[in-house]
Amino acid sequence: MIIRQIHVTPVAFRDPPLLNAAGVHEPWALRTIVEVVTDQGLTGLGETYGDLDHLGKVRMCAQALIGLDVHATNTMYARISALLGAPEPGTTATETGTTTPGPFTVATNPEEETKERTGESPGERTKERTVDRVFSPFEVACLDIRGKAAGVPVSDLLGGRVRDAVPYSAYLFYKWAGHPDEQQPDRFGAALDPAGIVEQAGLLIDEYGFESIKLKGGVHPPDEEIAAIRALHEAFPGVPLRLDPNAAWTVETSIRVGRELDGVLQYLEDPTAGIPGMAEVAAAVPMPLATNMCVVTPEHFPPAMAATRAIGVLLLDHHYWGGLVRSAHIAAMCDAFGLSMSMHSNSHLGISLAAMTHLAAATPNLTFACDTHTPWQDGQDVIQPGALHFTNGAVPVPTAPGLGVDLDRDALAVMNEQYEKCGIVARDDTSYMQRFTPTFTAKRPRW
Amino acid sequence: MIIRQIHVTPVAFRDPPLLNAAGVHEPWALRTIVEVVTDQGLTGLGETYGDLDHLGKVRMCAQALIGLDVHATNTMYARISALLGAPEPGTTATETGTTTPGPFTVATNPEEETKERTGESPGERTKERTVDRVFSPFEVACLDIRGKAAGVPVSDLLGGRVRDAVPYSAYLFYKWAGHPDEQQPDRFGAALDPAGIVEQAGLLIDEYGFESIKLKGGVHPPDEEIAAIRALHEAFPGVPLRLDPNAAWTVETSIRVGRELDGVLQYLEDPTAGIPGMAEVAAAVPMPLATNMCVVTPEHFPPAMAATRAIGVLLLDHHYWGGLVRSAHIAAMCDAFGLSMSMHSNSHLGISLAAMTHLAAATPNLTFACDTHTPWQDGQDVIQPGALHFTNGAVPVPTAPGLGVDLDRDALAVMNEQYEKCGIVARDDTSYMQRFTPTFTAKRPRW
Repeated sequence: MIIRQIHVTPVAFRDPPLLNAAGVHEPWALRTIVEVVTDQGLTGLGETYGDLDHLGKVRMCAQALIGLDVHATNTMYARISALLGAPEPGTTATETGTTTPGPFTVATNPEEETKERTGESPGERTKERTVDRVFSPFEVACLDIRGKAAGVPVSDLLGGRVRDAVPYSAYLFYKWAGHPDEQQPDRFGAALDPAGIVEQAGLLIDEYGFESIKLKGGVHPPDEEIAAIRALHEAFPGVPLRLDPNAAWTVETSIRVGRELDGVLQYLEDPTAGIPGMAEVAAAVPMPLATNMCVVTPEHFPPAMAATRAIGVLLLDHHYWGGLVRSAHIAAMCDAFGLSMSMHSNSHLGISLAAMTHLAAATPNLTFACDTHTPWQDGQDVIQPGALHFTNGAVPVPTAPGLGVDLDRDALAVMNEQYEKCGIVARDDTSYMQRFTPTFTAKRPRW
Repeated sequence: MIIRQIHVTPVAFRDPPLLNAAGVHEPWALRTIVEVVTDQGLTGLGETYGDLDHLGKVRMCAQALIGLDVHATNTMYARISALLGAPEPGTTATETGTTTPGPFTVATNPEEETKERTGESPGERTKERTVDRVFSPFEVACLDIRGKAAGVPVSDLLGGRVRDAVPYSAYLFYKWAGHPDEQQPDRFGAALDPAGIVEQAGLLIDEYGFESIKLKGGVHPPDEEIAAIRALHEAFPGVPLRLDPNAAWTVETSIRVGRELDGVLQYLEDPTAGIPGMAEVAAAVPMPLATNMCVVTPEHFPPAMAATRAIGVLLLDHHYWGGLVRSAHIAAMCDAFGLSMSMHSNSHLGISLAAMTHLAAATPNLTFACDTHTPWQDGQDVIQPGALHFTNGAVPVPTAPGLGVDLDRDALAVMNEQYEKCGIVARDDTSYMQRFTPTFTAKRPRW
């Protein structure tokens, strides 16, 4: 099955003013939709980040994949790697004809860790992080095609599902009532204190049936966020709780909060920046630490798994771990090192939710309910309705061939038009926040 | 594609008297051939160890896989795990419905490490090692079927080949001229000193075109084996050389040999037993240490990757790492931890050679030419001739669907008859050696 065409379409969809350590979500969230078309007319779907720089790389690399078989993911990865700055194949020959990777610069993202945070040497194999991100939507689309051709769901290409539905958590955010430039508040309302957070949790649980809760923190001083977690603990007794301040705290603050929330949190996510800081916190707090910030590429494993373990829970995300098969490799690595697992999410649409669900379904050692931003997209999607839904906070794994979702071409056209008109080309929570609070800075640690 | 039948057939084939630290190869080597048959009539092939205990486990587990789809490898693994002593699914529930593994006893093998050697606690997750071994031939057979159904070679199901031919090394053994009970010497002749080893290398290189050489050591006192390596170095200048004494040496001896062979060995394989000992040697010798003994299951990774690295090269072997996809996970882990890779081999037939070749072809970070016992089987096989051959020591990757090899039913019948008649039910190099040298012991370290 030879790839004949690849369509790359940026889209924008409405996003509520969700607060986080970097600022606040802008009125439009961006994604890039990838459609791979084969010589036999089968098409596959992928979804990835929408920032302009990334979009440009995806478009450039798409051209280089035309003519390849959908199975040739190793060659796709090598071509993308070469295009994005890796050395030419063969420059460092070994007995088996492979090459060693070279230095590359890193794409950044508001929720990502920086080199300073991981203690990683500048340029050390970091080109892989960009390659993994660009490769991911093509790999997902090729698995979609292979599943359709074989008449099996993508989860079957990953070893088959070990659970029939994948549990997700209620992902709570401090938020304003609405975007300041707009007349109407959104339907979710404001959530700026413990009572607002509890109300928001009630709304999401009523609508989706979630059985665990994550609060995005790093917005208010730690004691206010401790109070919010305690309020959730009282309002929803027995429901597992997580708190993620996105590395807004110092090591000392992280240890203090961790100790205060003993017996209340299921895990504490990225309280502080970098593997060394996380290791210090991990040794001093009672609950496991989770991350999607300090371990985001395979070469972070060795330092994070050193004698003093920096983390106990890895949040998998196929968007930056290089697609579904590479994420399965990471899951195997977590199993070998005794790490628990959940799944990370940025704002996303249904193609990603389907891919996440297939991956999670086929990952035996997934430990905790996954994160998703799905409630915040509030029904907006590029896929035809009906394929994905939540029951008791879990998404039944699609059993139709491939990802099991179909593109809604009208919705895609509308969202692409929104992209063209919205005026946003890259996520920038910080500048948007500064429009309303000019003194705001995203400096971390803040407390 | 539902599994309707599984045929499990033990076979025996002639094996020359190859010497090693455990003793000497018996006149017959054993393997188990697995044929999986689907409801659509497609069949897939797998090959695994032939020892009676293992054969019994394979037969028992085969029954439990009837009715499963060939994609459902996670469920197959779980069923085999349950049958071989893991806790009942659901006994240790998590949010996502997975279970944690329990203790199990370990199957042993003359070439394998023992618990004492790895410093592993008795029973600590070791049931996985047996499960991986039993699961492997079924997984390979299912990939064979999936490849045939999709019309693509198995390498395509693993990401596609990154090399068109897989290089193997000349695997030299000290050996007797023939088995003592038999009248005729075999065609390979004796090899008991440096000159004999050089002659054997010349024979294998002439016939197969190998471009690197491995000597199985641990047979003679270390100085004699050093002399053999030096003789190979002189006779085949520039050809990479490896020495594998199967942990027959103390740490002190290993360090002395390693230092004496500075600049001569590509890598030194398993000079001493266990991760702590290997780490001590690794810190003191100039070349990388390789292993197929002290890191043989995922949970060996954490201790082996501690601050003082025990190994620099992992020898992959899908027969005990749980099949091809799990081996691909291990390859990804090696990449993350900066380990080089080659491939381990026991005595095997063509189904295994095909599986090894597909896996190696689709493993970008394979560093060194792989090991194979193929020359010692001297044309005996259960597959129809023509699918696999060596050119310049490398096997071109089959491009036919699936593994690309077909069963030779007449040969299978003959080899099964040989199995029934040969009187050997489990490999025992030590007892066979003791028949001729009653004072021999396989105690390690010996020097």
